[in-house]
Amino acid sequence: MTTIGELGEDALIDLFAPRLPQTDAALLGPGDDAAVLSVDGDLVVSSDVLIENRHFRREWSTAADVGWRAAMQNIVDIDAMGAVPTALQVTLAAPADTDVEWVLGFADGLREACEPHGVGVVGGDLSGASEIAISVTAIGETHGVDPVTRADAMPGDLVAVSAPLGAAAAGFALLTAGQGQGLEAVGLFLRPRPLIGAGLEAALRGATAMLDVSDGLLRDAGRIARASDVGMAIDSASVPVHPAATEAARVLDVDALSWALTGGEDHCLLATFPAGAFLPDGWTQVGSVVDDYQGVRVDGAIPETLGWDHFSS
Amino acid sequence: MTTIGELGEDALIDLFAPRLPQTDAALLGPGDDAAVLSVDGDLVVSSDVLIENRHFRREWSTAADVGWRAAMQNIVDIDAMGAVPTALQVTLAAPADTDVEWVLGFADGLREACEPHGVGVVGGDLSGASEIAISVTAIGETHGVDPVTRADAMPGDLVAVSAPLGAAAAGFALLTAGQGQGLEAVGLFLRPRPLIGAGLEAALRGATAMLDVSDGLLRDAGRIARASDVGMAIDSASVPVHPAATEAARVLDVDALSWALTGGEDHCLLATFPAGAFLPDGWTQVGSVVDDYQGVRVDGAIPETLGWDHFSS
Repeated sequence: MTTIGELGEDALIDLFAPRLPQTDAALLGPGDDAAVLSVDGDLVVSSDVLIENRHFRREWSTAADVGWRAAMQNIVDIDAMGAVPTALQVTLAAPADTDVEWVLGFADGLREACEPHGVGVVGGDLSGASEIAISVTAIGETHGVDPVTRADAMPGDLVAVSAPLGAAAAGFALLTAGQGQGLEAVGLFLRPRPLIGAGLEAALRGATAMLDVSDGLLRDAGRIARASDVGMAIDSASVPVHPAATEAARVLDVDALSWALTGGEDHCLLATFPAGAFLPDGWTQVGSVVDDYQGVRVDGAIPETLGWDHFSS
Repeated sequence: MTTIGELGEDALIDLFAPRLPQTDAALLGPGDDAAVLSVDGDLVVSSDVLIENRHFRREWSTAADVGWRAAMQNIVDIDAMGAVPTALQVTLAAPADTDVEWVLGFADGLREACEPHGVGVVGGDLSGASEIAISVTAIGETHGVDPVTRADAMPGDLVAVSAPLGAAAAGFALLTAGQGQGLEAVGLFLRPRPLIGAGLEAALRGATAMLDVSDGLLRDAGRIARASDVGMAIDSASVPVHPAATEAARVLDVDALSWALTGGEDHCLLATFPAGAFLPDGWTQVGSVVDDYQGVRVDGAIPETLGWDHFSS
């Protein structure tokens, strides 16, 4: 094994850069002070952090799994605005004793997640650190479609999700219990597979507010409620539970619904649509927007727990 | 003292976001899945990482100093392309026991560095971590001026720097020796103050290759040499040494020139210009581009040390 400390920064970049996905929008890719991109319409930008042992564990995730997730959770943030993802900037800080192969595997995962969507990694930074810290900034283009924010949900709107929920949280629970072997939920936790393009379709169908479910349905619904100054009434019986979560719940003898309500990292979309809207294929209504209270209620009650907080856990 | 773990993510964002600098280019700022920006010309994007105890120490730098440096070293990367900086995305990962005041001071430093240049922080992410890890992505616009890369230096070109060098390395040496009290070099290490706009002026004056001196004159000259497939002949007697470095060298009884040659983090610009070019005000010729060897030579010899490597130290 060769460590990145032995190899050195410049040599590592020489191995790393050729593995990265490319985009037609890049007029100049990695290797200079900055990348140069052409843009069609306004620009949409989003960033996320992944920290070792908080957002991933090396004993669970391969390096490629980590690269996949780092890319995907940012690509979906662009999709959740109704925009088209184009390029990523990726920074990776890692201990000097990290295996070079890990870093190259990470690049492979970025590529596997990005290439089907025409997204390129156009630049970034590599640095030493005591623990692996990854930051990804995704850039997208509006192509003239108004971005869908969190702030324009209106009382009377439908609340809907783009796909069944709970698989990622179920996968996490299985791995924690040491019982993940061969179950689908584990794969969906390690490599979330939201349908990219669902956000643009929802925007074109008139979605009034939208985000991706990264910290749990209830917590993320709360964000729309707060930004839009409305209440979100969630009907738990209508929340679609992912079959992989149901399968995992049988193995662990628990209720899959709580994963669907409060489990994060599924990265499907949560959106509001005008009452009577024709929902895009695959979407399910899970509640409605109300004006008689603020925040989120489930079956009429204030939920005991909302989901994930990045500092308190 | 309140820690960020006690306060929680959403409440921290509520305190943090209003302190951030704003930009007229932001159609939608922090708080949604993504920011929305209007862009004039092509897009220029760059990212850098700062890790606690590698790129800064909390006993030396205030939180605002760290915010300043995080912003400035990315703004200058955009300037080093000859482009105009517009917006930053900032991710901050920090231990749960970090004082909320530290995080707010960090935001203040971002604002102090950005506001004079009309640069806004339009989004980012906050997360827990074992050590403070900051990643900044800067976005700029070309306004129709061709970006200046590292790859187009030509034999016969002049090599020049935009300002005297060595102050940041001198400040680091003073702090390490415990002798920094009241000396200018310390201030310039903690808050680098490159002249933003120098890159655009150099681009308009015909610079053929350019970057900012972040890892030392020789190492960064080597990057132009490699990208352009040329040799860089540096004349050490002509390298301008910052007066604050000369002052620090007297205090520590060392030679300031080595700081100017191999000390990083000054963030002034290194560029090549066609022979006979009229250099912008403040620039100094330090050598020439040659085709009889590759890499960097100082006074005709291969230097023993180039400067900073982010993994080996």
